[in-house]
This record gives sequence, structure tokens and C-alpha cells, in this order.
Amino acid sequence: MRKLFFTPGPSGLYYTVDHHLKEALKSGVASISHRSKDFMKISEEATINMRELLQLSDDYAMVFASSATEIWEKLADSLIQDKSLHIVNGAFSKKFYSIAANLENNPEIIESVWGDLPDFSSVNNDDYSLLAVTHNETSTGVRTPLDSIYKLKENNPQGTLAIDAVSSLPIVDFDYHRVDTVYASVQKAFGLPAGLGIWLINDETQEKARKLYADGKVRKSTHNIVSLLDQAEKFQTPSTPNVLDVYLLAKVTGDMITRGIKQIRNDGIYKSTILYNMLDNHPTLKPFVGRKEIRSETVIVIDSGEQSQRLIDYLSEKKLIVGGGYGKMKGRQVRIANFPTHSKEQFEMLVDLIEKFE
Amino acid sequence: MRKLFFTPGPSGLYYTVDHHLKEALKSGVASISHRSKDFMKISEEATINMRELLQLSDDYAMVFASSATEIWEKLADSLIQDKSLHIVNGAFSKKFYSIAANLENNPEIIESVWGDLPDFSSVNNDDYSLLAVTHNETSTGVRTPLDSIYKLKENNPQGTLAIDAVSSLPIVDFDYHRVDTVYASVQKAFGLPAGLGIWLINDETQEKARKLYADGKVRKSTHNIVSLLDQAEKFQTPSTPNVLDVYLLAKVTGDMITRGIKQIRNDGIYKSTILYNMLDNHPTLKPFVGRKEIRSETVIVIDSGEQSQRLIDYLSEKKLIVGGGYGKMKGRQVRIANFPTHSKEQFEMLVDLIEKFE
Repeated sequence: MRKLFFTPGPSGLYYTVDHHLKEALKSGVASISHRSKDFMKISEEATINMRELLQLSDDYAMVFASSATEIWEKLADSLIQDKSLHIVNGAFSKKFYSIAANLENNPEIIESVWGDLPDFSSVNNDDYSLLAVTHNETSTGVRTPLDSIYKLKENNPQGTLAIDAVSSLPIVDFDYHRVDTVYASVQKAFGLPAGLGIWLINDETQEKARKLYADGKVRKSTHNIVSLLDQAEKFQTPSTPNVLDVYLLAKVTGDMITRGIKQIRNDGIYKSTILYNMLDNHPTLKPFVGRKEIRSETVIVIDSGEQSQRLIDYLSEKKLIVGGGYGKMKGRQVRIANFPTHSKEQFEMLVDLIEKFE
Repeated sequence: MRKLFFTPGPSGLYYTVDHHLKEALKSGVASISHRSKDFMKISEEATINMRELLQLSDDYAMVFASSATEIWEKLADSLIQDKSLHIVNGAFSKKFYSIAANLENNPEIIESVWGDLPDFSSVNNDDYSLLAVTHNETSTGVRTPLDSIYKLKENNPQGTLAIDAVSSLPIVDFDYHRVDTVYASVQKAFGLPAGLGIWLINDETQEKARKLYADGKVRKSTHNIVSLLDQAEKFQTPSTPNVLDVYLLAKVTGDMITRGIKQIRNDGIYKSTILYNMLDNHPTLKPFVGRKEIRSETVIVIDSGEQSQRLIDYLSEKKLIVGGGYGKMKGRQVRIANFPTHSKEQFEMLVDLIEKFE
């Protein structure tokens, strides 16, 4: 038996990737130019499939970056005029804040302890040109409720609402009319090899960025929001992208459409429910996130304390690979991904094994 | 028969990539974290192999970027203090110049027509902090002789000599003591899927960049020369890289070491020689680059004029895929890659077919 990766990204490859990669080798996809019609067809297929899979409204463009980290940087370069607001509750939301600070933007922070979510319901401030929210904190397993995200935008309509959905897409069902820009990495819930970021940008945000660019307020990097958008209109990219990953994204989003996004999301709820239920009743382990309404569906963090390494090794012996705690929680937690590639049967096996862990 | 890609990058995959990719799927390489010991081992293997393959001196670090385009930008951000000098003789050398200009550095240019090389032997100027030379212009098939490159550095010792070796490595045998920094993309002569840049940086350049960084003169991007170097010391990267490509690079450089770099280079000379000889004697086709001493070994450009598309189609019918002219030469030229994955037998077949083309 091959190892089963339940690590929270990179995680197990989507189960059809093997097949598509072998097809790619046969057809020579890795040898085509990113300026060729063949590439443009693949990129268009990925875009069309993503629109359908996410039920994305027409006013959104999809651009490719090399990683979500690059998207953080381009967001900071392109859309922070005066100040940005960062809702921070873990390592990744903090990292975006740090990137904005390093680039000498003027980021402000509302922060909670790990495992919780700060209260940002009273934010009402015309000064923020960017509102940065992490839908799913991969480091802590905290999910930010959609209503609170939508309310932040309603209370601060001048701010571009940018949502880190790195470990959320395509599981989360956003109302795209109530957010402005959403980004993700392919190595999480899409189940692809690492090395590609996906950035969805609505019309209003495109216009705002183009105006700032025209006014000389956006750094003219090779990858900047305008060059990325201009190239995406032709289904191309400013520099040579990870062509193989764009191809795999086109194929896997197609497979997910065939399987049905409702089915995928329902399976996700089932899998997270059986894992949390077991943990809530386990004699020695418990979920790290206490408040049930902010528990992540896609990254489940176990407060396993000193048993952490033993739990990881115990599962590893059975070829089930789970993640350790992130950063300061290393050695004190176990993190488990619940992504579309993980079948209900695999999850049931995992839950059974953890239940028996002593 | 599968298509044979002689396109000048992305080109045919190195012939062992199929095997390594299938092994990667079995072992789960695409699912490992870029912060894990498993990744660090792979990254170290790629670094050690690259050192051996290129006979790289110990004072060089190797860092990964997402593309050579990103390396241009980071070079401009990190190493241009006052002015840079760009030796330009085609689309790619020009692009680096444009990137430096867009970032409001102060680039100067010495330019020739396409198919030739400008004379830069008399440059002697203390003002240039960066000297940008393209060893092999992929757009025109012009190779810059190594002696002229070394002389540029001797005449301008204060300037960091940065060499675009995108379609040169690992074929060209640089004297690494006489240059400062060299970069390439993996989708050219290494024969890997696109989406990874390789940047070699000597000690002196590292120190210069670190001093500029400490003095606040380097932009604190997530990827900057210092963050890339710091992470590379741990065999890591600042953001999630194309892990699969790093793995394939480790394996393919290992395979190239086994085959022997001398053998690979000798085969390269043989293949370019038979192609140029045939073209010099062809009734209707001729090499685009007239001066033999600046003809590229790795990218051979045919001045095929109005016959170009017909030649491309004629070869395509035989499953041999060659490249068209680049940019303004589209429809007027044919470009052929001569990379390590292309066997002597394949090249002989290609040469025979072109010889018979009427």
C-alpha cells in the first residue's frame, strides 16, 4: 500500500492526478510553450472549469501566480493605498501582515490567540483600502464564519476584501458578490503538486488596481496585478508558469465537476463530523479549537500535547501520514487535512485508528 | 511514436523524466512539505549534483526561484546601485533591460541587430554595478564567446557580472572564477517541466547583496536575494516551491553525472555541427547567424523566410516538433533546440529530413 497523505498541504494528490500526469507525459504537455495555442486552450479550460466548479460570477478574472505567498506580495503592492487591516489568528494570516509591513505599507492588525478568532465586528473605518481575512487558518484549524466576513465588507465598503482561501477552495461556498478577491494554492484541497497560486479578482478590484497602476502607484514588477490580468485575458501569463500544474488543474477541476461539488462538500462535512465527534469523546485527545462554530472543516487540529509524536508515528506505521503542529505548536499538536481526495473510507479508517490510540 | 520536441524551451523532457515522475508518484514526493527533512534532502541532492555536474567552485550558492524572469527582477532589485549595463542582442537580453527600466533602475544598453553581437570590448567604466550578458540568446541563436565575457569583467572589475545562461546550462563550461552570478531555467537544456529557475551566486556577490540589504537598499520582498540565500543554506526556500521540479532536477542532474558531462557536451558539438554543416550547404535554407564564432550550439536558428511554416509542418508530419521564429521573426525563421535529451540518432534523422526539404 502506498502512503496516504493527510498532511494539511501539500497533501495527498487528487486521486486522478496519477492518470493525468501519465497522459501528460504521452501527449507532451510539459514540452509546449506558454505562448502557444495549446497552452492557451489548457489555461482556458482551467478557467472555465474553475468558474463552473465554484459557481463564480462573471465579473471575476482568474490569474495564476507561482504561490499564494506571491499573491500576498502582489496584493500589498497593488491594493494598499494608505492602510490595510489584517485579521490575524495564526501563522499564515500573520505572514501576510508581515509581508505588508516589510514592504513599508501601513498594515494594522487585530489579533487573537491561536485557536480562537478575534472580534472584528465593530471595525468601521474609511481608512482601510485592503481588508485581509483568512477564511481557514491552516496553522491553527480555525475557520472564520462567512457571515462575519461579509459583515466586515458591509461595514467597510471602501476596503477591498481579500480572502485567503488557501486551504478552503473549492470546499467553501463563498457568495462571490459579497467579497472582492479570493486566492488559494493548488497543493491543498485541489490535490495538485505544489508550485501554483490561483487568484480570483472581481471587476471592482480590477478597476481599482488599474487606476492605481495608471496613477503610478503600483510597482511595475513583471508580475503585477495589471500584467497578470492583461495576460490572463489571453489565457497566458507574464512569465513561464508551471505549465504542468495548469494542465493538472484543468483536468482535476473537470473531474470535480463530474463528481459534483455538492457531493464533494457533503463528503467533506461527513468526514470532519466523524473526526470531531470522535475527538470530542476521546479519553486523552481533544480538538484544539474549542468553539465549534469556528472549527475548520478542511484542517482539523488535535490538541495531543506530549502524545503528538507518538500519535504521528503510530499512524505512520499504518502508512497514514498526518501533519505535526505548526511553528510554535510543533510537537504539541497533530494536524489532519480533510480534502476532496480523501475518501470517506480512508477517513473512517483514520478515525478508527485514532479512536484506538492510547 | 510520441512527438519529439526540438522546440527551444520548453523542449523535450530529459529521457529519464518519465521514469522519475512515475517513481515520484509512488513515493509521494509531491505530497511532502517544503519544510520537511525529506524535502531538504532532495534539495541538498540537487545542489550537490549541480555542483558536481558544472564543476562549480565552492564559493557559489545555488538558490531556487520560480522562473528566470523572477531572477531578472531580483537581480535588478538586489544588485543595481547606480547603473547597470545590458549587452542586448535579442528579445531576452532586451527583456532584462526593460525589467530594470520598469523598476526605475538606471540601465544602459549596448545593442546589436538580431543575429549579431554588439562590440562591448571597450567598455571600461566604474559606474556599472551590474553587467548583464546573455550567453545564449534563445530568440536569435547567437552565442556570446566566453573570452569576451571574461574580458568585460576584467575591464570592469567593480561590476557584478550576471550571465543569463537560460539555454546554456549545463552545456557551457564556464570558468566560474571569472564570472559572478549565473542563472538558468530548467525547461531548456535540463529537460524538465517548466516552473523553476536556478540561480548560482558567488561569495563576493552574496556579500555585496547582503551589505546592500543591511543598508536598506534591497527591497524586502519575500523572495529577495538575502531571503533566498538564507533559506538555501538550509536547503529550503522562502515560499512553497515547485517541489516536484526540484526532485526531478536532483534526479536528472544525477543521471547527467552518470552519463558524463564531457560526453553530453561532445554529443552537443556533434549534433550542432551536423546541423550547421547541412544548413551551410542547403540550396534554400541557411543559418540565420552568419558569423560562425557566435553561432549557438544549443539553439540553432534557420533563416527559412517564407518557407518557415511549410518546414515546420513538414517536420511535424514526421512527429518532429520544432520552434518558429521568436517575436518579430515569427513566420520567417525556424528554431531548433540541441539539448542533452536529444540523441545523436534523433538529430541525424532531423538533419536528414531538413536536408531533403524542398
